[in-house]
Amino acid sequence: MPDEIIDPEPLEPGTLRVIPVGGLGEVGRNMTCFEIDGKLLIVDCGVLFPEEHQPGVDLILPDFGFLRERLDDVVAVVLTHGHEDHIGAVPYLLKLRADIPLVGSQLTLALVEAKLKEHRIAPYSLTVKEGQTEKLGPFALEFVAVNHSIPDALAVAIRTDAGTVLATGDFKMDQLPLDGRLTDLREFARLGQEGVDLFLVDSTNADVPGFTPLERAIGPVLDEVIARSPRRVIVASFSSHVHRVQQVLHAAHQNGRRVALLGRSMVRNMTIAADLGYLDVPEGVLVDFKKAGDIPDDKIVYMSTGSQGEPMAVLSRMANRDHQIEIGEGDTVILASSLIPGNENAVYRVIDGLTKLGANVVHKGNAKVHVSGHAAAGELLYCYNILQPRNVLPVHGEYRHLVANARLAQDTGIPAERTFLAENGTVLDLRDGEVKVVGQLDLGFVYVDGSTVGEITDADLKDRRILGEEGFISVIVVVDASTGRVIVGPEIHARGFAEDDAVFEDVKPKIVAALADAAHHGVRDPHALQQTVRRTVGSWVNRRLRRRPMLVPLVIEA
Amino acid sequence: MPDEIIDPEPLEPGTLRVIPVGGLGEVGRNMTCFEIDGKLLIVDCGVLFPEEHQPGVDLILPDFGFLRERLDDVVAVVLTHGHEDHIGAVPYLLKLRADIPLVGSQLTLALVEAKLKEHRIAPYSLTVKEGQTEKLGPFALEFVAVNHSIPDALAVAIRTDAGTVLATGDFKMDQLPLDGRLTDLREFARLGQEGVDLFLVDSTNADVPGFTPLERAIGPVLDEVIARSPRRVIVASFSSHVHRVQQVLHAAHQNGRRVALLGRSMVRNMTIAADLGYLDVPEGVLVDFKKAGDIPDDKIVYMSTGSQGEPMAVLSRMANRDHQIEIGEGDTVILASSLIPGNENAVYRVIDGLTKLGANVVHKGNAKVHVSGHAAAGELLYCYNILQPRNVLPVHGEYRHLVANARLAQDTGIPAERTFLAENGTVLDLRDGEVKVVGQLDLGFVYVDGSTVGEITDADLKDRRILGEEGFISVIVVVDASTGRVIVGPEIHARGFAEDDAVFEDVKPKIVAALADAAHHGVRDPHALQQTVRRTVGSWVNRRLRRRPMLVPLVIEA
Repeated sequence: MPDEIIDPEPLEPGTLRVIPVGGLGEVGRNMTCFEIDGKLLIVDCGVLFPEEHQPGVDLILPDFGFLRERLDDVVAVVLTHGHEDHIGAVPYLLKLRADIPLVGSQLTLALVEAKLKEHRIAPYSLTVKEGQTEKLGPFALEFVAVNHSIPDALAVAIRTDAGTVLATGDFKMDQLPLDGRLTDLREFARLGQEGVDLFLVDSTNADVPGFTPLERAIGPVLDEVIARSPRRVIVASFSSHVHRVQQVLHAAHQNGRRVALLGRSMVRNMTIAADLGYLDVPEGVLVDFKKAGDIPDDKIVYMSTGSQGEPMAVLSRMANRDHQIEIGEGDTVILASSLIPGNENAVYRVIDGLTKLGANVVHKGNAKVHVSGHAAAGELLYCYNILQPRNVLPVHGEYRHLVANARLAQDTGIPAERTFLAENGTVLDLRDGEVKVVGQLDLGFVYVDGSTVGEITDADLKDRRILGEEGFISVIVVVDASTGRVIVGPEIHARGFAEDDAVFEDVKPKIVAALADAAHHGVRDPHALQQTVRRTVGSWVNRRLRRRPMLVPLVIEA
Repeated sequence: MPDEIIDPEPLEPGTLRVIPVGGLGEVGRNMTCFEIDGKLLIVDCGVLFPEEHQPGVDLILPDFGFLRERLDDVVAVVLTHGHEDHIGAVPYLLKLRADIPLVGSQLTLALVEAKLKEHRIAPYSLTVKEGQTEKLGPFALEFVAVNHSIPDALAVAIRTDAGTVLATGDFKMDQLPLDGRLTDLREFARLGQEGVDLFLVDSTNADVPGFTPLERAIGPVLDEVIARSPRRVIVASFSSHVHRVQQVLHAAHQNGRRVALLGRSMVRNMTIAADLGYLDVPEGVLVDFKKAGDIPDDKIVYMSTGSQGEPMAVLSRMANRDHQIEIGEGDTVILASSLIPGNENAVYRVIDGLTKLGANVVHKGNAKVHVSGHAAAGELLYCYNILQPRNVLPVHGEYRHLVANARLAQDTGIPAERTFLAENGTVLDLRDGEVKVVGQLDLGFVYVDGSTVGEITDADLKDRRILGEEGFISVIVVVDASTGRVIVGPEIHARGFAEDDAVFEDVKPKIVAALADAAHHGVRDPHALQQTVRRTVGSWVNRRLRRRPMLVPLVIEA
């Protein structure tokens, strides 16, 4: 893996260039760019959600700025499935060129179109399904069914003059999927027979031993929990998890309960899924939330969002008694979802809040109410053995996941020099079955923060972290422009700071003295005087209080 | 459980009052206060570590301020074991009255004395061991051996004229403990026979089904991982986990490797443990860190701290290549520890950093290298059945843990009305085998932040969260004291804010106009004028930029 930035040589005709733009070394903002003979193909364009060291950030986009001058050469964006980490950045890409065609399955495109509508973009789109082939410039695409935690996911085989690539997108290999739509290993076998030169493969669960349990194993658990609930049942899950909602609908129906959907994204996504036939709604089961209050407590199930402890989502608001459903003794809450690392404290706060209100809270820690959407190590071994690809590029995962996936590939006999541990921006060229790393682009984080995109820098985030941990001290002094004499101040104010404002009386004379000394030496420039104030206050606060708040000196001339 | 603040009636002679001060509804800062006939006994005095919504805070103390006027009545502080969440706040209590006697086992007192030395406090202490009885004023204490993730832990039975209490401290019931020191269920049985009126019992793992695995099951795993490591082995764990370090010493010894201890607290604690005979160091196994570099890579094990991803600890620094041990291909790192909720992202960043440097990272996610120190549900059932207490107060845990523990008690036949779900500050009175909730004190969080204790308020933390997420905008205006006319400014500065400073040109004329209008209406008070600036900028920034940064207006008269 190249550590330094290396500009790749210009691309030779007939060679396929592959650049993972996002999703390597992280779980999210998946995006890969393919180029051959002057044309570009993009696979996925997702967002990453910020961690605690990126405070205030709403979303993180792949750093696709390097494509800005090449957008007219993009033949299409292929979207493997409808999750945010694969489609969430599409609006930001289309803002640069609105008519890039989007290619994906029916459900995937319906979800991305609903999202684009909020951004007031109507995309050019092409609906495809498994088995279908499409020729887009120099790229001959073939779509392959894969099973994941959202219906209608596709892998994509990309045939070019330089060779064939297979990109899985996110997938697992549930052998008894709810909708009967298996990851198509027969097709993987056929492609392998024909020869796959490069395999881009989901690494998310590569370090999890064994096999992901069946989604359908959850149904009986839901059924049992609902059956013994004396009052209302609230189930929380991801708003795109059609199969999970499907199982809740069935379990509710079997128990003679009706289901009300809660939360804007839950209602929107399930309406789309039902309309397109991905969600089978038993006759008369769904009830509008507004009418659900009229139904007896032991005859209703609420299906909501907020399983990650998001403060504004339905479940957190219930836990904080800030929702019209008032949780009480005898209610049951089921968190039928994963616990994404970093969300633990927020989720446990919700669980505790609900427990305190009297609810019985069922979650993956105490019942089998969730299975992952990604292939574990055992499944990936099947995959490698069936496909037998020439070269492997593990994608979609933190570095430890990519390493674990590369080791699995090697365990099945793929030589180490043909398994590639890359970073975002690594440039790999494919020709004649050979993959070479030829460069490393300098890609960073593009932060969406309110209405701004890419304005917030890592320096701003460092400022925020300092402000958030130590607060700030501002020092204002007005000086006479001609003499440098202090006319007003120093006025000192602190916020988020541990000490009482009274401590500042100690440093004020030091500031006045330092400024007088500077004036005596002929310093008049306000910026230089501000540095004088900063040094004086900085050394005092470090020495006297052993703290490092942000210092904001301001010297104004009057 | 009382929701409101209720002042308890004055305590009648011969009645025992029990007040959990910390550790209920949280994992940490455990402290319980007992009172009878004018005398007080404190059991444990620990700290809580802050979560992400408490930025910059170093430690959180139990809110023992209500005892300030009663400190002369305290007969002793009993410390059940030497973990920070049970002893960490002792220095802050002793700062209020230095001669409160400390009672605990040999190892517990050695650890607390080392801590007090850093605070320059030499305590009065009384070393006790299991089986021993001590009469302290109206409290007759008997100490009972319990097994936990630190040696020499004790439960304490407190006999008074009002009845008998048993407080477990933290414990589990490993039936084949490394040091042979079992949780003394025979003594529990004898106490139960005699009659325990109130049982304060550790809830930390009450919602974990089954039984905590044996500590000794980890040894063979460590042995095997070390045996197949081609180069150096680095093991990280808690610096007080004597038994875990013991197993690392043995596994290293069996593999012909020497062990170097890394990190100040690891060296200090293990020196204490070895000196007192709690750690059995095989002859010649330990080597000073300074000389470890001379030993071949396949003959050394480093035992370090930092298993929770703490940024300044040894392991994080290794992952960031900021430590003299340079991790490379072939090195093995074992995280032989739990993953405390909230630390996941930090720990995974360390794992990824080490993996990227070439290390093989073994952790509880991929190998059995950790077991908990707390009794799981199955063990607690044994405990209730052997003890058969009259009343139960689950302690040490989040609310969901307390609820789970109360249910276990009820499953063994203890009536629901005799299992008490309390909060910090709930006042329970015991007399004639009956426990009554008689009040609820208003206890809060006492934050230690740098050198300050209790200065940082929840309002300051809210400021920090706003500053950390949205940054601030400061607006400085100098006005003529007599006319109210703006002489200098508005000067506007922002930090940690998403937008470019240029946007502020838009609002400057609005500020000038608003101030002129206020001056026209005779407003001269700088505070009132600051409110005018705040309103003007606030409505502009919300409307135009849809943001809510902290606004810091300053109007100076000249």
